[in-house]
Amino acid sequence: MMTYEERVRQSFSKQAFMSTLGADLTRVGQGRVEIRLPFSSKLTQQNGYLHAGAITALLDSACGYAALSIAADDKDVLTVEFKVNLLAPAAGEVFEARAQVKRAGQTLTVCSADAFAISGGSEKVVATMLATIMALPIPPAR
Amino acid sequence: MMTYEERVRQSFSKQAFMSTLGADLTRVGQGRVEIRLPFSSKLTQQNGYLHAGAITALLDSACGYAALSIAADDKDVLTVEFKVNLLAPAAGEVFEARAQVKRAGQTLTVCSADAFAISGGSEKVVATMLATIMALPIPPAR
Amino acid sequence: MMTYEERVRQSFSKQAFMSTLGADLTRVGQGRVEIRLPFSSKLTQQNGYLHAGAITALLDSACGYAALSIAADDKDVLTVEFKVNLLAPAAGEVFEARAQVKRAGQTLTVCSADAFAISGGSEKVVATMLATIMALPIPPAR
Amino acid sequence: MMTYEERVRQSFSKQAFMSTLGADLTRVGQGRVEIRLPFSSKLTQQNGYLHAGAITALLDSACGYAALSIAADDKDVLTVEFKVNLLAPAAGEVFEARAQVKRAGQTLTVCSADAFAISGGSEKVVATMLATIMALPIPPAR
Repeated sequence: MMTYEERVRQSFSKQAFMSTLGADLTRVGQGRVEIRLPFSSKLTQQNGYLHAGAITALLDSACGYAALSIAADDKDVLTVEFKVNLLAPAAGEVFEARAQVKRAGQTLTVCSADAFAISGGSEKVVATMLATIMALPIPPAR
Repeated sequence: MMTYEERVRQSFSKQAFMSTLGADLTRVGQGRVEIRLPFSSKLTQQNGYLHAGAITALLDSACGYAALSIAADDKDVLTVEFKVNLLAPAAGEVFEARAQVKRAGQTLTVCSADAFAISGGSEKVVATMLATIMALPIPPAR
Repeated sequence: MMTYEERVRQSFSKQAFMSTLGADLTRVGQGRVEIRLPFSSKLTQQNGYLHAGAITALLDSACGYAALSIAADDKDVLTVEFKVNLLAPAAGEVFEARAQVKRAGQTLTVCSADAFAISGGSEKVVATMLATIMALPIPPAR
Repeated sequence: MMTYEERVRQSFSKQAFMSTLGADLTRVGQGRVEIRLPFSSKLTQQNGYLHAGAITALLDSACGYAALSIAADDKDVLTVEFKVNLLAPAAGEVFEARAQVKRAGQTLTVCSADAFAISGGSEKVVATMLATIMALPIPPAR
């Protein structure tokens, strides 16, 4: 049987989009997950900042894995919905999404996450997410 | 002076992330914008569906450009926040985000958008967004 | 066995807060519900407009009952979360929330709703909601 | 000139809806506001819990006043939008909404708030809000 960290890491490694973005899983705790992404000019919006879609991808994966880290062994997770507030232009060398479980339920788990832009050792919050995640039975292997 | 369509197309062409995803601007009306994205295995989450971050990127850009299409000539737009509900697994050959302005204000514009998965001629809604966009004076050219 | 309209009307009649506000259920269709509220100076915020909490109460009940109107007979509904955009000052003689089911699922149903201010025969949208509703088995009578 | 606390208390006293609900302003700090509401059977939904609209009213007023507490003297505030997650049935003797400013901007301020149900000395979070508030010039007295 896998530990919660192995389950999270295995699932993350299957998210092709994370590898396309260049994102890494930097921390997996119980109910807490962090994902990092170095800036790339391929991920920008019209003013050269990181696109809100890229930031949202980090925040969403971090929230989903925070929920998965505390889910029962026979469950997978699925994002139901989220809200994102963009708090500052996403300018920085590296971006990090930090998610934590706010309330764990039988079926639904609510997570919050902040995204930080990190440059030269200092960091600044650039976005925040509030998300609802659903736990579902893992379908039997085919 | 540029038409609203030229402004939208020019800004879209500067969004490197849209070209990284493989997205195209398929319709620019006044207060209505559509963006298309062919499925790619590089954009998936752990079950092989399009990642919520990729869908959100489409929805967010479509909402922002719907707002830009009706903004004053001396204004640029910025996403303040959005909420996304994921309605069905994002499985399909092509995805299309369709955004429209719901309420245009002096400073803030509210847009809604749906994302559809299209396969073999039939389509299905997979996500919906409600977004707040801010109009800002364009900074003088440097 | 009750019809869907009877179920909705019976539940609404148990919402003491609706009667405290002075709200009425004005339409119950399958997947569509409308609730009306006459303006009262007891329900205002600091500028004399209807308080966002009162508008949200209408929108939330309308969304919940739109979901209940299509739920299985042995299910009750519960609001998981919602987002509200306030689009204009809530000034008017009467307010009406109109909700519809956007996507019905086994467990979760997504509804959208608009709130209108009506004065002298003309109406104006003042708020919009996007909500997630959960269907739950009705607990056995005690 | 009024202190920030006087401005918040004066505005709160004009919110007729707060007094209709029976709510009190229990704390006004810079960027932090708490509002309390004793349970009343007049404010319930169909199962006897506090209605989500009543909880949202508390959360919304708390967020708005947290933003007002740090706004410039010549500004009033207006809620642009909010998202609420309902985390547990709102059962308790007293409810308290606690809001804080998450990011203060020139025009827009983002606040978060939690609502707690308090019974017999212990408390439980029942809802959480993420809200966007706009600062506007106070219109000249008429």
